[in-house]
Amino acid sequence: MTNKFKSVGIIAKHNDKLVVETVRSLYDLLLSNDIKICVDDDAQQCLESTGVDCIDIKEMHKNIDLAIVVGGDGTLLAAAQSMVNNAIPIIGINRGRLGFLTNILPENMHQDLKQIFSGEFQEEARTVMTAKHMRGKEQLAQCLAINDVVVHARYVVRMIELETRIDDEYLNTVRADGLIVATPTGSTAYALSGGGPIVHPSVATTLLVPICPHTLSNRPIAVDENSRVEIVYSTNNKLNGIVSIDGQIETEIIPGDRLIMQRSPKPLTLIQPNSYSFFKVLRQKLNWSQQP
Amino acid sequence: MTNKFKSVGIIAKHNDKLVVETVRSLYDLLLSNDIKICVDDDAQQCLESTGVDCIDIKEMHKNIDLAIVVGGDGTLLAAAQSMVNNAIPIIGINRGRLGFLTNILPENMHQDLKQIFSGEFQEEARTVMTAKHMRGKEQLAQCLAINDVVVHARYVVRMIELETRIDDEYLNTVRADGLIVATPTGSTAYALSGGGPIVHPSVATTLLVPICPHTLSNRPIAVDENSRVEIVYSTNNKLNGIVSIDGQIETEIIPGDRLIMQRSPKPLTLIQPNSYSFFKVLRQKLNWSQQP
Amino acid sequence: MTNKFKSVGIIAKHNDKLVVETVRSLYDLLLSNDIKICVDDDAQQCLESTGVDCIDIKEMHKNIDLAIVVGGDGTLLAAAQSMVNNAIPIIGINRGRLGFLTNILPENMHQDLKQIFSGEFQEEARTVMTAKHMRGKEQLAQCLAINDVVVHARYVVRMIELETRIDDEYLNTVRADGLIVATPTGSTAYALSGGGPIVHPSVATTLLVPICPHTLSNRPIAVDENSRVEIVYSTNNKLNGIVSIDGQIETEIIPGDRLIMQRSPKPLTLIQPNSYSFFKVLRQKLNWSQQP
Amino acid sequence: MTNKFKSVGIIAKHNDKLVVETVRSLYDLLLSNDIKICVDDDAQQCLESTGVDCIDIKEMHKNIDLAIVVGGDGTLLAAAQSMVNNAIPIIGINRGRLGFLTNILPENMHQDLKQIFSGEFQEEARTVMTAKHMRGKEQLAQCLAINDVVVHARYVVRMIELETRIDDEYLNTVRADGLIVATPTGSTAYALSGGGPIVHPSVATTLLVPICPHTLSNRPIAVDENSRVEIVYSTNNKLNGIVSIDGQIETEIIPGDRLIMQRSPKPLTLIQPNSYSFFKVLRQKLNWSQQP
Repeated sequence: MTNKFKSVGIIAKHNDKLVVETVRSLYDLLLSNDIKICVDDDAQQCLESTGVDCIDIKEMHKNIDLAIVVGGDGTLLAAAQSMVNNAIPIIGINRGRLGFLTNILPENMHQDLKQIFSGEFQEEARTVMTAKHMRGKEQLAQCLAINDVVVHARYVVRMIELETRIDDEYLNTVRADGLIVATPTGSTAYALSGGGPIVHPSVATTLLVPICPHTLSNRPIAVDENSRVEIVYSTNNKLNGIVSIDGQIETEIIPGDRLIMQRSPKPLTLIQPNSYSFFKVLRQKLNWSQQP
Repeated sequence: MTNKFKSVGIIAKHNDKLVVETVRSLYDLLLSNDIKICVDDDAQQCLESTGVDCIDIKEMHKNIDLAIVVGGDGTLLAAAQSMVNNAIPIIGINRGRLGFLTNILPENMHQDLKQIFSGEFQEEARTVMTAKHMRGKEQLAQCLAINDVVVHARYVVRMIELETRIDDEYLNTVRADGLIVATPTGSTAYALSGGGPIVHPSVATTLLVPICPHTLSNRPIAVDENSRVEIVYSTNNKLNGIVSIDGQIETEIIPGDRLIMQRSPKPLTLIQPNSYSFFKVLRQKLNWSQQP
Repeated sequence: MTNKFKSVGIIAKHNDKLVVETVRSLYDLLLSNDIKICVDDDAQQCLESTGVDCIDIKEMHKNIDLAIVVGGDGTLLAAAQSMVNNAIPIIGINRGRLGFLTNILPENMHQDLKQIFSGEFQEEARTVMTAKHMRGKEQLAQCLAINDVVVHARYVVRMIELETRIDDEYLNTVRADGLIVATPTGSTAYALSGGGPIVHPSVATTLLVPICPHTLSNRPIAVDENSRVEIVYSTNNKLNGIVSIDGQIETEIIPGDRLIMQRSPKPLTLIQPNSYSFFKVLRQKLNWSQQP
Repeated sequence: MTNKFKSVGIIAKHNDKLVVETVRSLYDLLLSNDIKICVDDDAQQCLESTGVDCIDIKEMHKNIDLAIVVGGDGTLLAAAQSMVNNAIPIIGINRGRLGFLTNILPENMHQDLKQIFSGEFQEEARTVMTAKHMRGKEQLAQCLAINDVVVHARYVVRMIELETRIDDEYLNTVRADGLIVATPTGSTAYALSGGGPIVHPSVATTLLVPICPHTLSNRPIAVDENSRVEIVYSTNNKLNGIVSIDGQIETEIIPGDRLIMQRSPKPLTLIQPNSYSFFKVLRQKLNWSQQP
């Protein structure tokens, strides 16, 4: 039997005992399936005895046709930046706390991967945003956001003022702790704690969720995923703010700066076992009582 | 100059003094523009002196290429049932309280309609749901929902249990006062009071908003507008419940009954003046402070 | 050893198999402790073979110094109407779904009651409201509310308008599905689903929680428990509404009617095992994760 | 006619044009009423031409029997630290944005103060908390909180874990952006944006409001104002957090640190004009529609 995937990258994080165990087990599994293996720094440390070479995560895409992440959603989000741009699909083995993205449990890993390698799986395309940080006409930075772009006050109990434009039309000015711009994938992450709705990955929308808004009639708003969302860090702000991308990257934002979010032409491809169901994950993670 | 619309129906509700005044003014305006006029019962009563004949609202579509509603959103929602099915566009002149659908103010009516008749307007297609009430294999009723389908307990402080299936897959079982299934148009109506997000009309989604859910981790959920949403009024319920369509029609639902919502192939077409903006309406209705 | 309580009333509801079992077990326990026993209608049906006489729940207080309720919170709430007025303490054995008031589990009943009868227990005084229904100067009805007084629209998606006065001072006018006036005990019942805070039983407050308010800046409000809360069912309402007391009694309310809530001079006395803790119950019922 | 107050301190902030104008007008008013005047640094700058001496705000209480604050709630909160400890009542003249504490409008200042000086006013005692920051057995700091004590993550999208004990009993462990411990006065400040209820100043309670809690069933909780509230910054946190008192003071908190809040024996005394009403302020600030 031929494998659907010929060369796999292993990406791990937080070299804890359980991750080491899972990475080793995964390594053996891949070897015994005659799959070529690349590993990142952290995964290599789990595999010291094997003498396997590590490769920078940003270069890994050249050598693999699948990335397997062992860790939590944060590890997968960090890996996704490079994989999305190079159209490499990702599988997540859960060794973190929650896990809306890393859905395979270590105890099911052998069975689930065996099925996946034989070609039985679901391919899920998750919408990704590009986020640009603009100062005047200068673009300071650009990156991808799988979950969300968050603008937040740097200091506690210090509201910031943000002006939102959708496709160049003024929407509103929010005074709040911050504002979350989220993909459907991000709707079950930080945006949910902020009071946003759960959005099925197939819905073509971008969510705007104000964090602790001062105006009590401010509410989460869902706009078209093809809309250009522009957030202006108002010149009325006396202090700088913070921008966070997927909870991974933090940068400073100064009065007058703008963030521009648009749908990325390339989605994130998640490989899910056939047993995967978005609704089942929801029920488990949110402690919804089961069907009577 | 030729008019874009040749024959217009006037639909009014609640024969109050201000509606009468607006209907008369509208009638004169249409006459002076050489537009043919149909009127419904209530509008006729506003126009007694003219001797104009009235026509049943369900037959009106045969004679008109535009319906103008004078009243509130409720009047427009009632009229829409027949107009959507026959692809007649609607204009709303606001004589009610709120008015997310009836956007033309009486004081701007002459100016706005003049522009619209000359062909300068925005045509907005609003997604509509068909709702079927099933008992076993029997279909008890079918109708359109512009805003929402609401299942609710008949008695106060008496939760009902509802099971939701999306495209035949089990989503969850909610114990709550009720559940709102809303279109994007309905997101600014009852669903907003229930804690749902605001959804731009262009977003292709159907909202599920639980009303006072007993399980505190239940949250509004947005699914694909093309999904088939099925709500089962659980057989665990000891009492019957109520179904309400757009706040216009109320019927009883008994344990085991199912409601099936799907996107209607025909949208509601709203004619808006060029000055109309969904975001501007939001800011006004929700008392959001203006751009500084 | 002498028993703390000499004569106990057994009150049961919903003659299901598990209730029968628990009532029989409780009966035997009381007999073997030489405690005199009164039973209500439903409890008698559980005890047919014993030939015990039943007594109306409203007369029972004359013969007992403790009431033991077997069922859910609803059963206890119904029994409390008579017991509060006559200062009879209550114990709740849980045979219902939730159970913020009925805290003793059937499996712990023997052990917990043994300790309680020996005098080891906590006595909890829960604040109770008196609610009066006024039409003009006429008082139509008066009763006690352990949890809450709820005013609600009779029809779905039909807001009602309610005017609130606190100690004769105008507070606000709410347009909503309804309004919940709750005691601290009621804060974990319906008011919690409506978005109200959890209130410790020792806090001297009355909660006002609007249900699905139309004005998005309406919020739950906590006022002094000694304040006189007056709710006017506005004369702007075109339809009658519903008043519900503790989810037990439903009556109609017509435009212009007033509800007046004040702290009852007599509290509800709950007898709790020494192991009882309000916070522990909260953690269990609300599925809060335990201390790590 | 004798004045009720003999010696008044003027406290101002943010030397903007309107504050200068109001401070000067206030100065003249006090002079013409034969009231002795103390001024702080900022107020002195508004009064340069008068040659009045300034006095440190912490020493001012020795010379005054009333403090008048010209500015926003923030200015009043800062001044209150010293005034509460020395039982000096405060009047707030509003020159800020909102103003739940600074209720006198500049245009009404002359009339309102005239009445107050003649003894016609309301004296409002607002509950104040003492907050202690403990590291092991060492007390790092102690101060007063008029509004709230907020523990917050230092970094965005980085939850912190907090363990709460009430009167030495474990309540719960919250994973959230942060937690607000608020007085009734603070209930209309930051806690309201976080989803907490509005609490009348006369209610004897302390509010715990989680900010963007990860566990969706976490809710605001109201405990007795006499309870000792202890927040442990969990040793599971890998990063330090931030503590903010009344939005005025920010300090760092490290894993294992504890915050202990108790009711201060001394309240804040606000002098309000007789026309003042807490409910009226609520209606105005929250844009509630007026009584029909």
